[in-house]
Amino acid sequence: MKYGIVIFPSKKLQDIANSYRKRYDPHYALVPPHLTLKAAFEANEDQINDIIHELRKIAKRVKPFTLSVYKFSSFAPVNNVIYLKVDPVPELIQLHELMHNGVLEGQPEYAFVPHITIGQQMSNDEHSDVLGRLKMLDIKHEEQVDRFHILYQLENGSWTVYETFLLGEDED
Amino acid sequence: MKYGIVIFPSKKLQDIANSYRKRYDPHYALVPPHLTLKAAFEANEDQINDIIHELRKIAKRVKPFTLSVYKFSSFAPVNNVIYLKVDPVPELIQLHELMHNGVLEGQPEYAFVPHITIGQQMSNDEHSDVLGRLKMLDIKHEEQVDRFHILYQLENGSWTVYETFLLGEDED
Repeated sequence: MKYGIVIFPSKKLQDIANSYRKRYDPHYALVPPHLTLKAAFEANEDQINDIIHELRKIAKRVKPFTLSVYKFSSFAPVNNVIYLKVDPVPELIQLHELMHNGVLEGQPEYAFVPHITIGQQMSNDEHSDVLGRLKMLDIKHEEQVDRFHILYQLENGSWTVYETFLLGEDED
Repeated sequence: MKYGIVIFPSKKLQDIANSYRKRYDPHYALVPPHLTLKAAFEANEDQINDIIHELRKIAKRVKPFTLSVYKFSSFAPVNNVIYLKVDPVPELIQLHELMHNGVLEGQPEYAFVPHITIGQQMSNDEHSDVLGRLKMLDIKHEEQVDRFHILYQLENGSWTVYETFLLGEDED
């Protein structure tokens, strides 16, 4: 089964992201707006139990933190992906690192650039046009993050949450 | 903000449900296939903290259980909703009751008939036609349930998971 690990930002930020994703992101209906901590990976039932156990430990080690979005950006020319750039605070870097070690080992495909995708699979023309317009906008948003989620993918490509992990919690 | 409490069945059962939902359920892209424990309700930030606290206690009190799906059925003539009927085992009844008391008080709109919706908002003709065909099919499926989730609704009508609760767990 295919799994992924993400942070869902607040409803407010998700609503903002969706106002763009609706038009520019073919994944709009498959998953809510998110910040990917670990990209899609395969795991069987035995592996996933170890991984869940490890994720609970990771969550306890990392404190809640401030997620700060401060501009629109793009992965072009590598990919025509437009995103909200998220400040790479130490807690995000730490989460990403811990999720690519031990039972969660696996080289990330790209360097970690924390982001919330708002457009992808765009033609070059559409990408330039949309990015040009977004670059003129001011976006400054901060919020507290205290949790992340592991999701699995259904046959239709959509994602269902399997479990939530609360950061820095030693008890419920 | 609007919240709801659901069980997501296994990927296998979600894939089966989606094969019907794709054609017959306008909510297909808004939320994965689910069994509703508590229908959409409004809560502010203070209330939701109390509710989350209460849900953690409820989860610990109820043991994991077997979810058994044994036929297709419909809520017609009240609603043209076609669903997978789920055996109303004591744990499901208990969860439903606990989620309509205390800080979670609120009369359920209908008697609790545990189900996974696969079609809704159908015309009378389509409803009769589809239900007639499904009634001829055999469906027998059992699986273990050990968790439920609270979700919140975004402005576009879709749902994001806020937190997972593990049944019968006293520790991680």
